[in-house]
Amino acid sequence: MNKNSFAPVPPMGWNSYDYYDTTVNEDQVKANAEYMAANLKQYGWEYIVVDIQWYASGAGSMRDQFQYIPFSHLEIDEYSRLIPDPKRFPSSADGAGFAPMADYIHSLGLKFGIHIMRGIPRIAAHLHTPIKGIAETADMAASPSSICGWNPDMYGVRNNAAGQAYYDSLLQLYASWGVDFIKCDDICNTNLYRDNQYSARHEIEMLSLAIKRCGRPVVLSLSPGPALIEQAWHYEKHANMWRVTDDFWDNWDLLKDMFRRCELWQNHVSPGCYPDCDMLPLGTIGKGFHKERQTEFTKDEQVTMITLWCLFGSPLMLGAELTKLDDWTLSLLTNRAILNLLTPECRPKQIERNEEYAVWTAYNEKEDGFYTALFNLSDENRIVEVSIEDLGAAVMGIQIGDSLHDLWNDKTESVTDGYVKKPLPPHGCVIYKHF
Amino acid sequence: MNKNSFAPVPPMGWNSYDYYDTTVNEDQVKANAEYMAANLKQYGWEYIVVDIQWYASGAGSMRDQFQYIPFSHLEIDEYSRLIPDPKRFPSSADGAGFAPMADYIHSLGLKFGIHIMRGIPRIAAHLHTPIKGIAETADMAASPSSICGWNPDMYGVRNNAAGQAYYDSLLQLYASWGVDFIKCDDICNTNLYRDNQYSARHEIEMLSLAIKRCGRPVVLSLSPGPALIEQAWHYEKHANMWRVTDDFWDNWDLLKDMFRRCELWQNHVSPGCYPDCDMLPLGTIGKGFHKERQTEFTKDEQVTMITLWCLFGSPLMLGAELTKLDDWTLSLLTNRAILNLLTPECRPKQIERNEEYAVWTAYNEKEDGFYTALFNLSDENRIVEVSIEDLGAAVMGIQIGDSLHDLWNDKTESVTDGYVKKPLPPHGCVIYKHF
Amino acid sequence: MNKNSFAPVPPMGWNSYDYYDTTVNEDQVKANAEYMAANLKQYGWEYIVVDIQWYASGAGSMRDQFQYIPFSHLEIDEYSRLIPDPKRFPSSADGAGFAPMADYIHSLGLKFGIHIMRGIPRIAAHLHTPIKGIAETADMAASPSSICGWNPDMYGVRNNAAGQAYYDSLLQLYASWGVDFIKCDDICNTNLYRDNQYSARHEIEMLSLAIKRCGRPVVLSLSPGPALIEQAWHYEKHANMWRVTDDFWDNWDLLKDMFRRCELWQNHVSPGCYPDCDMLPLGTIGKGFHKERQTEFTKDEQVTMITLWCLFGSPLMLGAELTKLDDWTLSLLTNRAILNLLTPECRPKQIERNEEYAVWTAYNEKEDGFYTALFNLSDENRIVEVSIEDLGAAVMGIQIGDSLHDLWNDKTESVTDGYVKKPLPPHGCVIYKHF
Amino acid sequence: MNKNSFAPVPPMGWNSYDYYDTTVNEDQVKANAEYMAANLKQYGWEYIVVDIQWYASGAGSMRDQFQYIPFSHLEIDEYSRLIPDPKRFPSSADGAGFAPMADYIHSLGLKFGIHIMRGIPRIAAHLHTPIKGIAETADMAASPSSICGWNPDMYGVRNNAAGQAYYDSLLQLYASWGVDFIKCDDICNTNLYRDNQYSARHEIEMLSLAIKRCGRPVVLSLSPGPALIEQAWHYEKHANMWRVTDDFWDNWDLLKDMFRRCELWQNHVSPGCYPDCDMLPLGTIGKGFHKERQTEFTKDEQVTMITLWCLFGSPLMLGAELTKLDDWTLSLLTNRAILNLLTPECRPKQIERNEEYAVWTAYNEKEDGFYTALFNLSDENRIVEVSIEDLGAAVMGIQIGDSLHDLWNDKTESVTDGYVKKPLPPHGCVIYKHF
Repeated sequence: MNKNSFAPVPPMGWNSYDYYDTTVNEDQVKANAEYMAANLKQYGWEYIVVDIQWYASGAGSMRDQFQYIPFSHLEIDEYSRLIPDPKRFPSSADGAGFAPMADYIHSLGLKFGIHIMRGIPRIAAHLHTPIKGIAETADMAASPSSICGWNPDMYGVRNNAAGQAYYDSLLQLYASWGVDFIKCDDICNTNLYRDNQYSARHEIEMLSLAIKRCGRPVVLSLSPGPALIEQAWHYEKHANMWRVTDDFWDNWDLLKDMFRRCELWQNHVSPGCYPDCDMLPLGTIGKGFHKERQTEFTKDEQVTMITLWCLFGSPLMLGAELTKLDDWTLSLLTNRAILNLLTPECRPKQIERNEEYAVWTAYNEKEDGFYTALFNLSDENRIVEVSIEDLGAAVMGIQIGDSLHDLWNDKTESVTDGYVKKPLPPHGCVIYKHF
Repeated sequence: MNKNSFAPVPPMGWNSYDYYDTTVNEDQVKANAEYMAANLKQYGWEYIVVDIQWYASGAGSMRDQFQYIPFSHLEIDEYSRLIPDPKRFPSSADGAGFAPMADYIHSLGLKFGIHIMRGIPRIAAHLHTPIKGIAETADMAASPSSICGWNPDMYGVRNNAAGQAYYDSLLQLYASWGVDFIKCDDICNTNLYRDNQYSARHEIEMLSLAIKRCGRPVVLSLSPGPALIEQAWHYEKHANMWRVTDDFWDNWDLLKDMFRRCELWQNHVSPGCYPDCDMLPLGTIGKGFHKERQTEFTKDEQVTMITLWCLFGSPLMLGAELTKLDDWTLSLLTNRAILNLLTPECRPKQIERNEEYAVWTAYNEKEDGFYTALFNLSDENRIVEVSIEDLGAAVMGIQIGDSLHDLWNDKTESVTDGYVKKPLPPHGCVIYKHF
Repeated sequence: MNKNSFAPVPPMGWNSYDYYDTTVNEDQVKANAEYMAANLKQYGWEYIVVDIQWYASGAGSMRDQFQYIPFSHLEIDEYSRLIPDPKRFPSSADGAGFAPMADYIHSLGLKFGIHIMRGIPRIAAHLHTPIKGIAETADMAASPSSICGWNPDMYGVRNNAAGQAYYDSLLQLYASWGVDFIKCDDICNTNLYRDNQYSARHEIEMLSLAIKRCGRPVVLSLSPGPALIEQAWHYEKHANMWRVTDDFWDNWDLLKDMFRRCELWQNHVSPGCYPDCDMLPLGTIGKGFHKERQTEFTKDEQVTMITLWCLFGSPLMLGAELTKLDDWTLSLLTNRAILNLLTPECRPKQIERNEEYAVWTAYNEKEDGFYTALFNLSDENRIVEVSIEDLGAAVMGIQIGDSLHDLWNDKTESVTDGYVKKPLPPHGCVIYKHF
Repeated sequence: MNKNSFAPVPPMGWNSYDYYDTTVNEDQVKANAEYMAANLKQYGWEYIVVDIQWYASGAGSMRDQFQYIPFSHLEIDEYSRLIPDPKRFPSSADGAGFAPMADYIHSLGLKFGIHIMRGIPRIAAHLHTPIKGIAETADMAASPSSICGWNPDMYGVRNNAAGQAYYDSLLQLYASWGVDFIKCDDICNTNLYRDNQYSARHEIEMLSLAIKRCGRPVVLSLSPGPALIEQAWHYEKHANMWRVTDDFWDNWDLLKDMFRRCELWQNHVSPGCYPDCDMLPLGTIGKGFHKERQTEFTKDEQVTMITLWCLFGSPLMLGAELTKLDDWTLSLLTNRAILNLLTPECRPKQIERNEEYAVWTAYNEKEDGFYTALFNLSDENRIVEVSIEDLGAAVMGIQIGDSLHDLWNDKTESVTDGYVKKPLPPHGCVIYKHF
């Protein structure tokens, strides 16, 4: 099993976090899946991912004090493995776990993903509960000095046989449910440990091995960011996607900073290996955070975000509550000309970036097509331009007279004077395909 | 209650760690106390301190794998407070705690101290056990992201009312036992948190307040080091002693480095406020570590250590198993001329330090007496000297013809040529009193 | 010569920087000296210090681009030593140097100081000019990789015989002029070298030795700050004062931050050894910076500043143009009750500090007198108070019924209820003497 | 002019540093060039590079004290530009510069390169000498606070018009001589500035622009390393090669560490863009350092080094004195099967690396050929192996029965059991081409 074959293109899907925080339930997941199957699937959207604390029965009930209630009750099976809270996920009762939900989602032609925290439940370690298939108990797999700085549920796993047995058993269970995608958290950058932000390196390897052993192609997504560029090779070897940013929200400063992050990671996109720009905070979001709202991104900013994520090759995970999706947002997510960019064969290349603007190109090997995108990063209207000489390195043979197709506006322009240029609104962009 | 009055001179005593590690038991503590009462008390030695994990029943039983067994059974009372393991401390059974032991030690004319880890037992937080006097349970006092990097027993305490109630109840209990001295660990430098090594600042304040409220003068000693010099004022305000070094052992490099640390902290010794150079690894040590041995310090190094600790004004805590004390070591600990230095009125002042030697003076305000110490820090025989001009700033009025009394050798020399000087063996020293 | 005897009390004086920047001339210095002799001398003010670039002929002429013009013409004698620009200091012509100016200032009963940059002029190194008394030339004394990050004039001096000869010759010259005070810059914290901010350690020692050798008691003041607390002993051994802050100006945030700095350094004030809170930006300042203004401190802030500097024991250097001093500012500088605090026998001790307020005490050994100061650090009117229990450690025997003399308002209050307390305006303070 | 076209394959050549340090002269350069033309040119070796301080007349004369004599005489033309020392390079006299030398080297069918230090001569700034074509003088182009931490010759150049004019004039001059390659030092990592090791970012851009403007394809090589991975895009945009390591010498620890560095940079090799593993310290080296010697690398280590550099795609610059080259070393440099790897079309990919061994593959797009290399990084004989499953991701379709050609030993083996494996001596390697 070559893990790169599990995700031949950047995964596209929906994730419960941006709208529900820790509180999503079975009906809500299904409703989003149904929307996706009906409206988005034909454009490539296929993953439905249940994010953090689906195993915590009180999740969200003390939101004024805690995002994650410390030392609260977690659902755990006889082998120290977290299982869904049956109150929120009724179909999971009686040991069924997420299998019924996964079946339903598969029946819609979609794929099913879950979020996990790195490690083994703390309470399992304290209570010395069993690990499947071995005599040692959870206290021997758990590392008491390895915790997450922001979530209280787990201890990191030791680099020993008991730890591997635990992860193997975890993947067996989750594979038996039909899980297609795991977003593992507190693992990509263990930022509590400032001297060793890659302290969970061995847990990445253990998870990767457990996936190989489980016999099911499970896409492995690592969080949170920023991923460590000096570990790029290790991410590429063991995972399918890794977050290159802290949590991304609907804020221009964060979006502007993504240009820097994409610059950093542009050489690291290849089949099965995707630097991850994080979820798209579009449409209606924030309910679980007690801040339900329409995205605070302007339309121009939304177009810029989608363009950058697609051109760069990032996975696309929708944060919006899909059942509330408006037409305009839907149009963003179903533009085939733009989504066509989203393939590892479409090599991104930044031509220029400063505080005022950025210029990127992409070369789609599959179709032998060239793209150029101009971004206005400033707060004013601005003509952004790039000389065909500067484009030369990336876009072979571009010259005066060539045609340019504006993908978002579906109209054709041409190179008239040695420059590709466009007047752009603040935070806006244009992306051209060359002919 | 002014905490400075609890320790008008630097505390002198014995601590179980260097010999027993985590394993000391009641009979062993008593035997050491009896030795102290019979042989050392008249020289000022008075504290008997039981070090780490007196509450852990399996302590020491997996020493090849763990110094502190993770998730092991700890003795805890109904209010989430650690109590002695009754197997090792039989007199503590049936709720007596350390009261019988403290009584016995007090009956010998000595004082009784215990080691604690900052925080509340992790298991108490996970099991939501009660805190005395309030409705909230341990999970509301414990901070799930505050742990010790090297000991698995506790969670740090939140800076809230539940946390203060817990610490208040802890001091009530320990004061009721007759505890005179608390060495609190993982609090002086919380080195897991590299960006905030003073992350337990509020717990120092909470402990200080709990001591005030408990009504008993309990000396507060903070570990581990190195203490943070920029927090000097805060230590001085809330504690009686604070470790200026990591764990100190019988190794010349560590001893040599103490000269640097004493240089740093010399202005911070005052009544009730003592930078702590750590325990004296003299005599027989190391049994609990499976390395029982005579101290690896040479006799010259031992003399140097005692001289520096006394002149500087550090607390003196013996690491030796007292029942095995040899005559020579005993003589080191009972030299009244040297111990006489150990008063906060004896202001230390470094005159010079480099890789080869150090010169220190002390001015004892109480007796209006001047002292000069010469230390050979090099690995060869060496004449160490200081000009009376350089001494001038500290030792007012020293001149040619003055008499110098060599305290260790009890003989008198005189200043003949403008220098105080002495041929010294490697790592050796001389200390003079001026007349 | 014991350097501590050169400055038995914290130096008080005037410095040209805050008003003139790099541009002060002979007449201006004299005018300020005359004002001091007539109006301030009787209160202890005695130093007149000419600050940076008195040797640079074009100083200030390109102020829009450069504070210090790079590679500009500097006045240098035949031995690679900087001498005054004769255009600005006419009496210095023909090799007289600052001797005539020093003579004049001495004739007023005052002392004369100059600013120097650590090192040897860069141009001297490049031109291989002589060093007095040795065959080697300036290129052998200069260290090409030791520069100042903000002033282009000098290279640091190597730790070799040529370097010491240069510094010896420098002090000979400046002592021959009658210089009483040297403020050496880029030496206390060489902040360009982030891994070694004490990279000029050897130059401090070389200067200290050169002062000893020159035969004149020259006070040594080290800049810029922040001084490194871990080097406290070294400053105390070699210098008389050292800056504990970056450049201090008339800005409340900077003043508030001085409370933190004074907390850090309070144990390091002793005869001849003064942590330096920097110049007092009072009265009229800023002309040389093209921002001539009355200090932007409120009156309450000015009182707070003077109180803290005096109670703490900092040197007092006036930044104001003295010839423009208003009556109110003059009254601040001539309050004998406050200035009486300024002695190393007046030991400062912080009792409490948080974001809202601070409480300090001082015990004046000379007069056996106790002082308590309350500071309102908040932006609102606020009653600041301290319990007599908390004061206890520092102010022995204070009790209900004791009298308190408010030094600034010259009126007497009494302790009525176990607290010393006072309603204070934003950024205001009160200081009491106890009876 | 697209700078990537200047170096379509990783440059191969000779550099004077490893053998001559700062002292190489005209005859020596020519002798090496003649050797190359006669023996190496047909294998792709073509650059002859004169390394540091060809402009310093006393270079090497105080080698016991200084590698670079501070403030020594440098040859400079009327426009503040460094020119060759005519004593060492007689043909450069009378304003000819390196033109005659370049002509000679070109006549041999080779290319000519020189080393420069970032910046403008310090002495030019101090003496205000002219810059060609503008009225402003060198003091306006030089930045007084931008120096090199290890070489005393230059000031960094300001980011202003005068600075650009200087760099433009420099490239005009060097292009007029016929220079084909510039190795610019103290620019890739300005390590004196720990908070900003990319402080010369603007100088890279200025040099890049000056090259564009000069009209000659001049390869730009940046030193020293380690290059900053987060600046990868900027190096790729502006330069042709950049050092990924500090100075590399004949020491196994350094060579072993190169595997880590190659892991880090493997995604950053593309036409015209080469992470640079530094010179090859082979054959006879060290004379200018007063340590003339045969390389201290074992033969196995030499093979490992050449294999890694070629497979990775690093430029190859010989440090050996070519006139002393032995047959064995020559054979290393003329193995066409190995040198064939050295093309940006040969994409390197690390499969595994730990302390004991490393496995790499390369896919040569040009010939559609796969390579696998096994390296023994341990100090013992060891069988190094990789499963064909693990190779799968990189080497498409490898299976049992495939043939493997051992390039160094020119013999064919086959995959017999699911592994590519080989017993290897300490620090040794094997590289196979697949069929």
